[in-house]
Amino acid sequence: MKYPRFVLIEALWPHAWHKELAGAMNSSDLSPSAGARTQAGTGRRKRGQRQIARILEAAKAILIAEGYAAFTMRNVARRLAISPGTLTYYFKQKEDLFKSLFEDFLRRHEALLAAKKEAFPDDPLGRYEAYVSALIEESRDAFTRVYFYQLWAVSSHDPFVESLRKDAYDRFLADAESFIRALAPKRPARLVRRKAFVLCAMIEGLHVMAGAHASQLRRCAGYEGEFHRHVMALVQSDGPI
Amino acid sequence: MKYPRFVLIEALWPHAWHKELAGAMNSSDLSPSAGARTQAGTGRRKRGQRQIARILEAAKAILIAEGYAAFTMRNVARRLAISPGTLTYYFKQKEDLFKSLFEDFLRRHEALLAAKKEAFPDDPLGRYEAYVSALIEESRDAFTRVYFYQLWAVSSHDPFVESLRKDAYDRFLADAESFIRALAPKRPARLVRRKAFVLCAMIEGLHVMAGAHASQLRRCAGYEGEFHRHVMALVQSDGPI
Repeated sequence: MKYPRFVLIEALWPHAWHKELAGAMNSSDLSPSAGARTQAGTGRRKRGQRQIARILEAAKAILIAEGYAAFTMRNVARRLAISPGTLTYYFKQKEDLFKSLFEDFLRRHEALLAAKKEAFPDDPLGRYEAYVSALIEESRDAFTRVYFYQLWAVSSHDPFVESLRKDAYDRFLADAESFIRALAPKRPARLVRRKAFVLCAMIEGLHVMAGAHASQLRRCAGYEGEFHRHVMALVQSDGPI
Repeated sequence: MKYPRFVLIEALWPHAWHKELAGAMNSSDLSPSAGARTQAGTGRRKRGQRQIARILEAAKAILIAEGYAAFTMRNVARRLAISPGTLTYYFKQKEDLFKSLFEDFLRRHEALLAAKKEAFPDDPLGRYEAYVSALIEESRDAFTRVYFYQLWAVSSHDPFVESLRKDAYDRFLADAESFIRALAPKRPARLVRRKAFVLCAMIEGLHVMAGAHASQLRRCAGYEGEFHRHVMALVQSDGPI
């Protein structure tokens, strides 16, 4: 058997979560990132893009089922039954693969934010509300949660992954600041920054509370209303600071 | 050299965070857990407890510097220069070690909660405030953050670690409910549960935002005041649900 550990975990796992994750995987639109190489010539380029998409799907599946420790070039190549040389042609090392998955998430994330901004050009409160709803929606995606768990864990001892993490959170904080600033342009910058920090913490906390298998969410049915009320209150009142 | 990867990471790491983590490690009081074996007889028992403490410190150091992938019985034994047999005598497998580190955290956590309850027997609001401050304080401990990152990441594909994670969060939610319930005994149970969920999310989000190296915290200096104001607002007003 080629992937004994993967098969074993699938067979033993008590929940139906692999099905959920499989759904999450299929729904995402994986496209080649800046880190991936494509060849010139239409036919060859198309084949290249298909290959890259297949590689990223395989990398995703390994990350979900076995975590970052098993996220190796060797395992990805084996899963696809391609040679290590073929894999290296598209992605030089596992860091490029991990980063491409991240860029895939960021592309969708930024597109979502841009759409929210466009939909409410003259209504900062409606825009903020739509932005927050989009972030809550993102936390429902099981692969996104699992990816971020890996990012946090590996960033503690891997400088490359820590730099990915740090850049991403600088960006998340800057986005939150821009949505919050628009609500009250006279609010002091440091207060906007603190509110952005609290908002980001609340959203990241949702990702944590859900867990990979969403077990705690079932216990706290209806939490969204309470959560939504508080992310709105966050920007609607300024206490003594 | 015995631990080339560990040494390499320490030498390359750009921040002073190992120092911070080393401090966090020394300050914690590691004691043998229910999972660890101690021998009868005072002298032998004392030697056994010392050995267990040394083993847990080594396990902690490996988790910090290299993550769960390197958290193996073999690496722990090598780090201490003891035989695998000696290690197995105290901890049958790595899961017991990982669980012992968790129980060490939970012991300190529960003691903290009990102290807060005792200090405010007739003042539920003071008690809630002290409880929240204690949780914020916990998020400042770098090893605690790193441990939880590992817990979240590994729980996505390891049923044993997922069961640890789930039990812990059921407990955290139940604790939060009890502190919140005391503030307004007539508040509907489902509303208490939702507020407990939002509070837990906010606290877990702090752990995420800090990161292993606390880099984002420096950018958002003064966030504690804003954060504190919102965890208080959470229990002081009930909106339409």
